[in-house]
Amino acid sequence: MSGRVVCFGELLLRLGAPGRQRLLQSPQFEVHVGGAEANVAVSLARFGHEAAMVSVVPDSPLGDAARGELRRHGVDTRAILTGAGRMGLYFLETGAIQRPSRVLYDRAGSAFALAGAAPYDWPALLAGASWLHLSGVTPALGERGAEAAIVAARAARDAGVRVCFDGNFRASLWQESKCNPAPILHTLMSLADLAFADHRDIAVVLGAKASGASSDDTVAAARLAFEAFPNLQRLACTRREQRDVDHHLLSASLFHRDGGVLHTAPRELHGIVDRIGAGDAFAAGFLHGLLDGMSDEDSLSFALAAASLKHSVPGDFNLVSAQDVNDLIAGGGFHVRR
Amino acid sequence: MSGRVVCFGELLLRLGAPGRQRLLQSPQFEVHVGGAEANVAVSLARFGHEAAMVSVVPDSPLGDAARGELRRHGVDTRAILTGAGRMGLYFLETGAIQRPSRVLYDRAGSAFALAGAAPYDWPALLAGASWLHLSGVTPALGERGAEAAIVAARAARDAGVRVCFDGNFRASLWQESKCNPAPILHTLMSLADLAFADHRDIAVVLGAKASGASSDDTVAAARLAFEAFPNLQRLACTRREQRDVDHHLLSASLFHRDGGVLHTAPRELHGIVDRIGAGDAFAAGFLHGLLDGMSDEDSLSFALAAASLKHSVPGDFNLVSAQDVNDLIAGGGFHVRR
Amino acid sequence: MSGRVVCFGELLLRLGAPGRQRLLQSPQFEVHVGGAEANVAVSLARFGHEAAMVSVVPDSPLGDAARGELRRHGVDTRAILTGAGRMGLYFLETGAIQRPSRVLYDRAGSAFALAGAAPYDWPALLAGASWLHLSGVTPALGERGAEAAIVAARAARDAGVRVCFDGNFRASLWQESKCNPAPILHTLMSLADLAFADHRDIAVVLGAKASGASSDDTVAAARLAFEAFPNLQRLACTRREQRDVDHHLLSASLFHRDGGVLHTAPRELHGIVDRIGAGDAFAAGFLHGLLDGMSDEDSLSFALAAASLKHSVPGDFNLVSAQDVNDLIAGGGFHVRR
Amino acid sequence: MSGRVVCFGELLLRLGAPGRQRLLQSPQFEVHVGGAEANVAVSLARFGHEAAMVSVVPDSPLGDAARGELRRHGVDTRAILTGAGRMGLYFLETGAIQRPSRVLYDRAGSAFALAGAAPYDWPALLAGASWLHLSGVTPALGERGAEAAIVAARAARDAGVRVCFDGNFRASLWQESKCNPAPILHTLMSLADLAFADHRDIAVVLGAKASGASSDDTVAAARLAFEAFPNLQRLACTRREQRDVDHHLLSASLFHRDGGVLHTAPRELHGIVDRIGAGDAFAAGFLHGLLDGMSDEDSLSFALAAASLKHSVPGDFNLVSAQDVNDLIAGGGFHVRR
Amino acid sequence: MSGRVVCFGELLLRLGAPGRQRLLQSPQFEVHVGGAEANVAVSLARFGHEAAMVSVVPDSPLGDAARGELRRHGVDTRAILTGAGRMGLYFLETGAIQRPSRVLYDRAGSAFALAGAAPYDWPALLAGASWLHLSGVTPALGERGAEAAIVAARAARDAGVRVCFDGNFRASLWQESKCNPAPILHTLMSLADLAFADHRDIAVVLGAKASGASSDDTVAAARLAFEAFPNLQRLACTRREQRDVDHHLLSASLFHRDGGVLHTAPRELHGIVDRIGAGDAFAAGFLHGLLDGMSDEDSLSFALAAASLKHSVPGDFNLVSAQDVNDLIAGGGFHVRR
Amino acid sequence: MSGRVVCFGELLLRLGAPGRQRLLQSPQFEVHVGGAEANVAVSLARFGHEAAMVSVVPDSPLGDAARGELRRHGVDTRAILTGAGRMGLYFLETGAIQRPSRVLYDRAGSAFALAGAAPYDWPALLAGASWLHLSGVTPALGERGAEAAIVAARAARDAGVRVCFDGNFRASLWQESKCNPAPILHTLMSLADLAFADHRDIAVVLGAKASGASSDDTVAAARLAFEAFPNLQRLACTRREQRDVDHHLLSASLFHRDGGVLHTAPRELHGIVDRIGAGDAFAAGFLHGLLDGMSDEDSLSFALAAASLKHSVPGDFNLVSAQDVNDLIAGGGFHVRR
Repeated sequence: MSGRVVCFGELLLRLGAPGRQRLLQSPQFEVHVGGAEANVAVSLARFGHEAAMVSVVPDSPLGDAARGELRRHGVDTRAILTGAGRMGLYFLETGAIQRPSRVLYDRAGSAFALAGAAPYDWPALLAGASWLHLSGVTPALGERGAEAAIVAARAARDAGVRVCFDGNFRASLWQESKCNPAPILHTLMSLADLAFADHRDIAVVLGAKASGASSDDTVAAARLAFEAFPNLQRLACTRREQRDVDHHLLSASLFHRDGGVLHTAPRELHGIVDRIGAGDAFAAGFLHGLLDGMSDEDSLSFALAAASLKHSVPGDFNLVSAQDVNDLIAGGGFHVRR
Repeated sequence: MSGRVVCFGELLLRLGAPGRQRLLQSPQFEVHVGGAEANVAVSLARFGHEAAMVSVVPDSPLGDAARGELRRHGVDTRAILTGAGRMGLYFLETGAIQRPSRVLYDRAGSAFALAGAAPYDWPALLAGASWLHLSGVTPALGERGAEAAIVAARAARDAGVRVCFDGNFRASLWQESKCNPAPILHTLMSLADLAFADHRDIAVVLGAKASGASSDDTVAAARLAFEAFPNLQRLACTRREQRDVDHHLLSASLFHRDGGVLHTAPRELHGIVDRIGAGDAFAAGFLHGLLDGMSDEDSLSFALAAASLKHSVPGDFNLVSAQDVNDLIAGGGFHVRR
Repeated sequence: MSGRVVCFGELLLRLGAPGRQRLLQSPQFEVHVGGAEANVAVSLARFGHEAAMVSVVPDSPLGDAARGELRRHGVDTRAILTGAGRMGLYFLETGAIQRPSRVLYDRAGSAFALAGAAPYDWPALLAGASWLHLSGVTPALGERGAEAAIVAARAARDAGVRVCFDGNFRASLWQESKCNPAPILHTLMSLADLAFADHRDIAVVLGAKASGASSDDTVAAARLAFEAFPNLQRLACTRREQRDVDHHLLSASLFHRDGGVLHTAPRELHGIVDRIGAGDAFAAGFLHGLLDGMSDEDSLSFALAAASLKHSVPGDFNLVSAQDVNDLIAGGGFHVRR
Repeated sequence: MSGRVVCFGELLLRLGAPGRQRLLQSPQFEVHVGGAEANVAVSLARFGHEAAMVSVVPDSPLGDAARGELRRHGVDTRAILTGAGRMGLYFLETGAIQRPSRVLYDRAGSAFALAGAAPYDWPALLAGASWLHLSGVTPALGERGAEAAIVAARAARDAGVRVCFDGNFRASLWQESKCNPAPILHTLMSLADLAFADHRDIAVVLGAKASGASSDDTVAAARLAFEAFPNLQRLACTRREQRDVDHHLLSASLFHRDGGVLHTAPRELHGIVDRIGAGDAFAAGFLHGLLDGMSDEDSLSFALAAASLKHSVPGDFNLVSAQDVNDLIAGGGFHVRR
Repeated sequence: MSGRVVCFGELLLRLGAPGRQRLLQSPQFEVHVGGAEANVAVSLARFGHEAAMVSVVPDSPLGDAARGELRRHGVDTRAILTGAGRMGLYFLETGAIQRPSRVLYDRAGSAFALAGAAPYDWPALLAGASWLHLSGVTPALGERGAEAAIVAARAARDAGVRVCFDGNFRASLWQESKCNPAPILHTLMSLADLAFADHRDIAVVLGAKASGASSDDTVAAARLAFEAFPNLQRLACTRREQRDVDHHLLSASLFHRDGGVLHTAPRELHGIVDRIGAGDAFAAGFLHGLLDGMSDEDSLSFALAAASLKHSVPGDFNLVSAQDVNDLIAGGGFHVRR
Repeated sequence: MSGRVVCFGELLLRLGAPGRQRLLQSPQFEVHVGGAEANVAVSLARFGHEAAMVSVVPDSPLGDAARGELRRHGVDTRAILTGAGRMGLYFLETGAIQRPSRVLYDRAGSAFALAGAAPYDWPALLAGASWLHLSGVTPALGERGAEAAIVAARAARDAGVRVCFDGNFRASLWQESKCNPAPILHTLMSLADLAFADHRDIAVVLGAKASGASSDDTVAAARLAFEAFPNLQRLACTRREQRDVDHHLLSASLFHRDGGVLHTAPRELHGIVDRIGAGDAFAAGFLHGLLDGMSDEDSLSFALAAASLKHSVPGDFNLVSAQDVNDLIAGGGFHVRR
């Protein structure tokens, strides 16, 4: 394999109601470790890559548990520091049929958010890395988060490390942060070689008038993005058609600076087990393709298959191997593997 | 909001096999509190109404637990009395695919059934109420149950409290009761302002020849009902087309004394989590509409959406808010709410 | 009822990850008892027949538990002996959507495999029996397994007990065994009155060129089988079309020596709970038909319905009654049974 | 081994709160099968004896499960009939420290209680038996229970089968039954060869003035019993000194018609896991000694050790082997067995 | 019964590791609702008193669940308001043998702490109350908490409602609050009629030199307290001798302004299930005595027995009835209650 | 900290019955990862040392899970190789009161046992290490295990890495191995600088006549060991007095080549949660002392306290920190840590 990937972001504990219960319907939480960038790190580690996590957690059993869980899945956790503040949490209620899932964030005052840009020695952390991965979740934490993300991305460019940025735009988080997302995301996109964003995300950044009604809009938005961000080489996104809470059609698109456009056929996902982290699984899958020198088409296909498999795995992490993904792409069928 | 609703009926403990196991396949029961009228009370309380339960439970940890669970969900439980006898139970095995769910009733000798009509001071219990809700489950307990239901309904009419009656016709229960359902149900229907019953239920009461083969029969049955029961203002029912145990199409109809007829489009429910209590969720949803002064059309739409959501919630209670229901009606989509 | 059925094969403990988790994602195993022939024995016992299991388990709490579980479900376990060696295990990860289920066998050195043909007093064991049931899993254990199976089948023919053989061909098991399956399976098929095998299994045995592309191939393969095996009266098989891991179409075919060919319509199975043991449920269902003197058509219909129900029951055993199966065939619908 | 033991009594499902929770503190029950006489049957089967259960259960999944559980543990269940009525239940809350455990019986209207003496063909059921075991729980069900017990005991005496009677005197059950226990128990004691009863039980039967303040009273009470009941050969009982809910001292005494008196030293039981069924474990242990031709001293020692081990096993059944008991008597120590 | 008690303080969710596991050793939390004053409210409600909770929780499923749980146990929750901020949490790891239990607070930024004194209309809230109960946990939240507590206590005195104050002094919480506890606690003690505090707590408030080496110091400290706080009528405390994590000796003392001093004998508690909330159980038990007009001696005895029983109940709430407590005091013994 | 410790031995999965149930009493296993040397590695990692595991596991989800679990707890797992063969398992039934715990090994044919001495490049593996830790469990696997252990220990001596050997003598394992333990253990002891062994273990190796009746025998045995093994510097052991299964007194002794003898006072352990791995916790604790340059007395005290804490932690690993151990030694008491 090839090239170390450094992931930078917050670790979270997910506290979920069991099965399809409403939150605290029965007095139990199932716990998973997550966080958009940690999900990518775990995926990459399981695909056989060297993946390192950079973060700050509290010096507590909760912080230790989150770090231990990443280590368990093969992520290099030596750069997960400890600092003052809480462990970021989120509560999850998994919906069903026509009742949507709900996420209740409880990350105010987290050690990662409080830490800002200060604790990280980026030149050392990026030594030997081929990619830095970060996402829009970090700047949405507020000014300190925005600064931390921008400092990291700039350090990567300075060090000749490519930057992968997943927009992960969530209006509610930005609203809480009381920051204007446009200029911050603009800066981060301008530093990225690879971005995960659809026409709506691009509209937030560029104020463009992408309506999303047709696939042309996506193409047009991508063209605007390549114009605005000269470092950007590739832009990828998924498209999710939701028949009900448990039944989706997932497809993906890739746009290349050289004008290349790829659209996959949709994968139909019935009886979804857990959709949290599917976007991160897609990002990790696409990075895997680039790291392994696959064609854009194969990378996109791998990314979509990886994201599809994520819907069958409980928790935030996409606990599948590259072999699992390739089996699906190869059409190995659905019989029991013995 | 508006108007207190008094619900009268038996509280039951549901003892269910976990997941899709057969009864006692593994040595565990998951416990829920239920009962047709209690389900309505909980729904109404969660929709923001003042809902009170009138019942009798044994003076035991089981009776206490049932009462506590209703109180937890906001129902006024001061009129749940204690009396001699057992706690009513039912055992549930949730089926799957082509294996139907099974309910095994174990309610003979329950405190509620033994109590009959005696313990209730209806004028006091109905003070300030706008509706009394009861169902055909109570008279199906036998002579004492029938008397208790009729006494309650008469007291309501005397007190100017409107009566809502859900037929809930179950042949097997009536058979056990050794009573003839027709005259008893006739009396109760004659006291009701609002009834939940379809053409088959009406046929039981009126001996009419409704075959159910077409929707016209339903309309005809409704017409017969309005003729027979001059107090009756509205008649509502659901229609369930079952593709398999986990996949249903649910639609609803409303008939008004003034001749108005409304039929909804069906809602398709795939991957059903728990269908027990869906009829009660429908009744509560429709009452919510009336209490809030909605149009009949909006009330019916709300009731159907509420009933649909019930299929996604484990247990007998429809643990959703009016906001949850309105979101579904508004077509908010199935994405994760953050 | 009618006629004792003796089932001969290995008992296994299944250690499964809970829900749709990956193996050891969380630190728990759910345990079921299984084994192809034991599954048939349990099914037959629940259909009301006298079913006896012949096997060897270790003299340990694990062997005791396996035997006790069969006894619990009504199987005569007096001929389950103890012997040196381990308890055979298998680990199961239940897949979802597009992630296939996985089975990890851990049966090397099992007490059953080590025992070979020696411990069984077949004339005594077969006294009063009408059928001996065995499967291709036993000879796939290696030379000793093959000898044990052939000795048993010969003893049955000598005693005038009909032989039912389920091919259960699994390439990976045979590969491990380092035996050539063709001559061994040929011998066993030649002793069988009834066999469960499709055109691919027959191709393994006869080297025939059945491609499976069309139903004609199946018919042709069956004709070849009846020519090669003069004792064989009936040949049955299922056909499974897998839309995804949780959604299959299951149909069945029956071939009679007299040239009769029956094909069922497919049953559509959405939201599959547990497909392990469905083939054994089919075999038991068909035997039930023969034991009860049903027509071939009714037997096949019963077998398919039984196999379909198995997909709704967790574990290896098809914990349904003949009544459950007949209700499904009769089209009783999917409403809750009260 | 030696001699078939027929046990006659009611099967019950125990629904217990998990851990040390109060009843329905969390919405779950752990289920065990029990019943005083069934507990004896399971113990004897696990000690290697032929033990048969005679009872009536409802023809329902609950009755099937109870029967299956006995079969799992090696009891001959062919004489467990089905009949009209409910499954007998009891709810258990396991106490701790200074909070006593609580049992809430829910057995009114059970199939066993309704059946009375009618369904049993005692001459056939007792064929080949050396002992009939029954207990005071059955007559405490009321007149029909009393008749059933007396008919069974008389049939045994007529058939030359020895009768073992465990008083199991529980004032609350008798109170509910509205029967006078004295004459009924008198009749049953007069038919018994072996009885389990202490001076308080004897006082109930004989109206004697045993105060229990000293061991002399026990001896005196035993003397009175042998005078009153000429068939009685042996009388055994345990004595339990309860330091708190989880810490007891258990000792045992045996009285022989020939005047022999044996008292054991107490066994100290700290950190009790489950004390339900300890008396039944004692009875089964003593019967085991008699069946195996042990001396009275060895039988008593075995019975006490068996009862002591029961306190370490969750559920009503004493899931230990004779080897487990003998190891404890032999002083094998408490190290891990590997 | 007699007199409404208003409890004022924060509601918390307790997230506990199952059994004796370390925090997140396995990925699960068991959830209980707690909070020092809420524990008192639940206890009083279960003892049959009218108990109302005044608090602020977030308008979220977590806040709803906490409120619902109090309502379930009979507390009047109409005065639990909603406000901006998080739900207060704490994580619990239950120790064993020589490994102490650990509590990790996560309540910074809670809705209750942010609310300060503003939201409460005390004259209305205290109408009809006989007692206001609050504790030192609230002022330890910081300046706003201190103000809220003092405002409440003053309002009670103004309204002629007696004030009960439980010191609940925890150095670590006060350290975080960056407030000086002495003057704040001084103010609160000066408003109290009844206080729960030992000589160490009094030393914190008064700077007295109580060393705790002998019981005389306690007496001396009490004398100083009565001198300093002329409103104070009674002072009570428990004394806990810890042999190991699971084995304590618990005794209690009461000091009366008129000079009366009562010391109980210790209760020995082996095999402790859950000690959290024992102090609150003691406070509620003593209040129960006062409300029921018991003598001081009986009140103290009741309070100690209630606190002892708490050690046997999982969770923060003392889920016992007055009857349970009285049975223990009466020496009813530890046999199973049937 | 100081010095890398390399641990060499087999990884095992422990499949345990929940709570105090008998094996497969209910159909569930709780899974823990263990293995004598892995337990030491995890302990050392949690005490802050660099600990590496050398082993062979199958290339399967089971092998992956075991490796992941060690990584989670901070062990360097890069030298855990994969090879042909099974995953070693053991089944655990945790006893109670007077019923001993039981271990059922199922490790025949494990990848580690099959691998023998071949796969390890010891010079590379030992680079930078200060200690090699191994135990008597490895040679007890048979000839290949014995060779693997001796090759490893010799390589350590050659590389100047000190050898720590824990006898872990288990007669049943050696019996299965069909090897004579004396000469093999003699060789290993002769290579060790530090050994964990008591007089009985020494008697096995040296044929000495240590009876263990008094502590003098231990001293004499130690003297014989130092004479026989000139490399041996220190010999340590624990002594366990078992009052019952849940109540032990644990003390420890240390013998130094220079004649120094230290005996600790016993620690009393009531209500034991899990005693598996306590010996490994002791070994790790003592190594921690040596690595940190503690006095022998402090090391022994630390080791005993660490072993005592292990009894409170479920699973094989001693999931405590050095701080936890030091708190216990410092007598910090048993109050809740907040």
